[in-house]
Amino acid sequence: MDLSELENLFGDRLVTSESVRSQHSHDESWHVPENLPDAVVFPETSNEVSRIISFASKNNIPVIPYGTGTALEGHVHAVNGGITIDSRNMNKVIQVNMEDMDCRVQAGVTREELNSFLRDTGLFFPVDPGANASIGGMCSTGASGTNTVKYGTIREQVIGLEVIMPDGKIIQTGSRARKSSAGYDLTHLMLGSEGTLGFISEISLRLHGRPEAISAGVCSFSELDGAVNTVIEAIQIGLPLSRIELLDELQIKAINQYKKTSHEEKPTLFIEIHGTPLGVREQIEKFEEIAKENSLINFNWSDQQEEIDKLWSARHSALYAALSLAPGKKSFTTDICVPISSLTECILETKKDLESSTIIAPIVGHVGDGNFHLILLLDPENEDEVNEAKDINDRLVTRALKMGGTCTGEHGIGLGKKEHLRKEKGISVDVMAQIKKALDPNNIMNPGKIF
Amino acid sequence: MDLSELENLFGDRLVTSESVRSQHSHDESWHVPENLPDAVVFPETSNEVSRIISFASKNNIPVIPYGTGTALEGHVHAVNGGITIDSRNMNKVIQVNMEDMDCRVQAGVTREELNSFLRDTGLFFPVDPGANASIGGMCSTGASGTNTVKYGTIREQVIGLEVIMPDGKIIQTGSRARKSSAGYDLTHLMLGSEGTLGFISEISLRLHGRPEAISAGVCSFSELDGAVNTVIEAIQIGLPLSRIELLDELQIKAINQYKKTSHEEKPTLFIEIHGTPLGVREQIEKFEEIAKENSLINFNWSDQQEEIDKLWSARHSALYAALSLAPGKKSFTTDICVPISSLTECILETKKDLESSTIIAPIVGHVGDGNFHLILLLDPENEDEVNEAKDINDRLVTRALKMGGTCTGEHGIGLGKKEHLRKEKGISVDVMAQIKKALDPNNIMNPGKIF
Repeated sequence: MDLSELENLFGDRLVTSESVRSQHSHDESWHVPENLPDAVVFPETSNEVSRIISFASKNNIPVIPYGTGTALEGHVHAVNGGITIDSRNMNKVIQVNMEDMDCRVQAGVTREELNSFLRDTGLFFPVDPGANASIGGMCSTGASGTNTVKYGTIREQVIGLEVIMPDGKIIQTGSRARKSSAGYDLTHLMLGSEGTLGFISEISLRLHGRPEAISAGVCSFSELDGAVNTVIEAIQIGLPLSRIELLDELQIKAINQYKKTSHEEKPTLFIEIHGTPLGVREQIEKFEEIAKENSLINFNWSDQQEEIDKLWSARHSALYAALSLAPGKKSFTTDICVPISSLTECILETKKDLESSTIIAPIVGHVGDGNFHLILLLDPENEDEVNEAKDINDRLVTRALKMGGTCTGEHGIGLGKKEHLRKEKGISVDVMAQIKKALDPNNIMNPGKIF
Repeated sequence: MDLSELENLFGDRLVTSESVRSQHSHDESWHVPENLPDAVVFPETSNEVSRIISFASKNNIPVIPYGTGTALEGHVHAVNGGITIDSRNMNKVIQVNMEDMDCRVQAGVTREELNSFLRDTGLFFPVDPGANASIGGMCSTGASGTNTVKYGTIREQVIGLEVIMPDGKIIQTGSRARKSSAGYDLTHLMLGSEGTLGFISEISLRLHGRPEAISAGVCSFSELDGAVNTVIEAIQIGLPLSRIELLDELQIKAINQYKKTSHEEKPTLFIEIHGTPLGVREQIEKFEEIAKENSLINFNWSDQQEEIDKLWSARHSALYAALSLAPGKKSFTTDICVPISSLTECILETKKDLESSTIIAPIVGHVGDGNFHLILLLDPENEDEVNEAKDINDRLVTRALKMGGTCTGEHGIGLGKKEHLRKEKGISVDVMAQIKKALDPNNIMNPGKIF
């Protein structure tokens, strides 16, 4: 592959060393890379990305958008080699509009960087997957996190995008208005398209005012279904929960070990409520009433920001804590999401299914959204383990689809869920493929993903 | 055009009488139909729609989806003739899931029919454009209404669609899960596509719990900018308004005449707040404080549902009331939307621009969203009036785009805003056209709209 044209443009920001190519060949999942990208480029501007993609388009070279490499379905694998575009140097917060509560960022800004930048504004950006992902990466997979139950996913935050199309052209989608009916919604078409339709280079986001009062707490239950039913009942009576996360006893054990905490090793909810000081107290009391009727053991609350931060830092470490249960293993993370009324049944059936398995599989989930993960710990080179994990996920997806749910709530299709996508969406996958073919006829953008 | 195959299938549900074709040749706007559809068909099921579109596809005949004919940009005009599919008999509420607060409806169900159906459930559907539009039609134009500031537009309510594609195939999009990252977001691609990509036949919607307490009120101001600034300040301090609508003195005069009411003929806000009884009272007091510093004259509140219903019925009659100011004229309705911080400037500049015009032009708007309408009353046969209205709108759109806004907040592009779409979106319109061509290569679905 003759990259001299790009080398002339990017100098030492185009890297072909094996170590850097290897670092960029995989994400945080169990998927084993079968190939390396031919080069990794570190652009700083949208125009530079456009130059790279124009070059790739002319020469029919695959292009792989890369954020922080924290995806969970092989999204950044260079299955046919090609050029990986790492957005880490596209890390500028371009504009913050305090009055309109929106901002514009480059794709490489991470969620923590953005919130640090906003620290003194009274505003914040709520979407928080476990990893400190880049905003561009979060857009590409349709990410969400613990705040979704109140604030929505990344899809509800993005009001506009700049996208470098597969021919190198730069387009703008959306506007700064709160709503628009101006033509097709290209913003939402690009969100969740996993880099297969273009490279998201800039993002306009809604921001939110920091709540007047925040309380968070840890509730442990003697029974798993008690914890889940508490969530369902609280949501159905309209309690305005901001975060509500389930961790089973095994996941709590992992966090205790990894973070040196001493939570009771029982099915546990981490919850948070935002509002006025009086309102928050009222909601907590209502929540406690519901929990008490559902096998509650322990209930510890705090309104101290330091305590609260510690709690969520523990929650966000769930994947790394789980991995520490079995050093050397990788995670095969399932991601189904079901209507909330089916959640207890789905979790209990899944727990039962796991009984006959030898795979270590802590459960953690955004139960307020009906979304939970099994972190199946396995050796990717061990075919039996991989097959067993796949079988568990196949049965889990079948269960979720029967309940009107989806095979992926927030991680995306990537390499790992193509068959599940077809099972879930049927012939509408053909419509997706028609769009892909129209916009990227030579299939240069992140080939091998979704389809 | 030989329609015998369809006549055999639909019998007297396929109509070719001139009166019915003429009724279906136009919407509620000033756009003069230059053509009639060749036939109007009244299917009852998705399969029947699929049969019609398959037939049209084979014979290269235009297909025009038709809801209640209440669009405002010529969306249902049969510019090249063809078959208009009227969804009025697709009026079943298929399913209501109380526990998950969602439902599934056929496209022809109107917003009022759905809310009547839900009357005893404690749930409601919040999107309320002026007309009693069909849910399918609302999906097609990306409709919103007075509740958007709290509940969002139709785009935030739809969790899944059934769409009959231009080749007659029936696809399902979305799921009943609260979030999903399963492939491209075809749901949002279809929402706002104005019938140009397919016929939306069924819709899964989120529903909302009826609030514990509702108060609504009328506030009149001596100055227009006092009314607008009140809205902006209330939103910026985070007052949880559910509805906040502006009507200028002329629009109030029209409503007084049309609905026999006696509101003070001054710039006026209609507002509504939802919450707990105590919370609502607290918010009203805060709102009044802000209004008093912004030229408030009068402030009348009610928590009586009958009074509240009367208020919103007056608001929803705005277009018809305006039309009654100049009998025989039609409305050319503008629809820009800007970031809230630019709203006062945009409205004041627009008012100033109108001073030199002879066209009667009441102002009404969803100011909480940054969206307002001029209802320009004109005789569509009077070229001077039409040109003057177009010039006013051109200048208004230019003003809005400079402020980071959009040419259409909720009405769509249709026939009337194609040039504005290009001005706003630039080459991203080419990307939209690529998608249109890929999915509807023979351009049979609602030709002449958007592009």
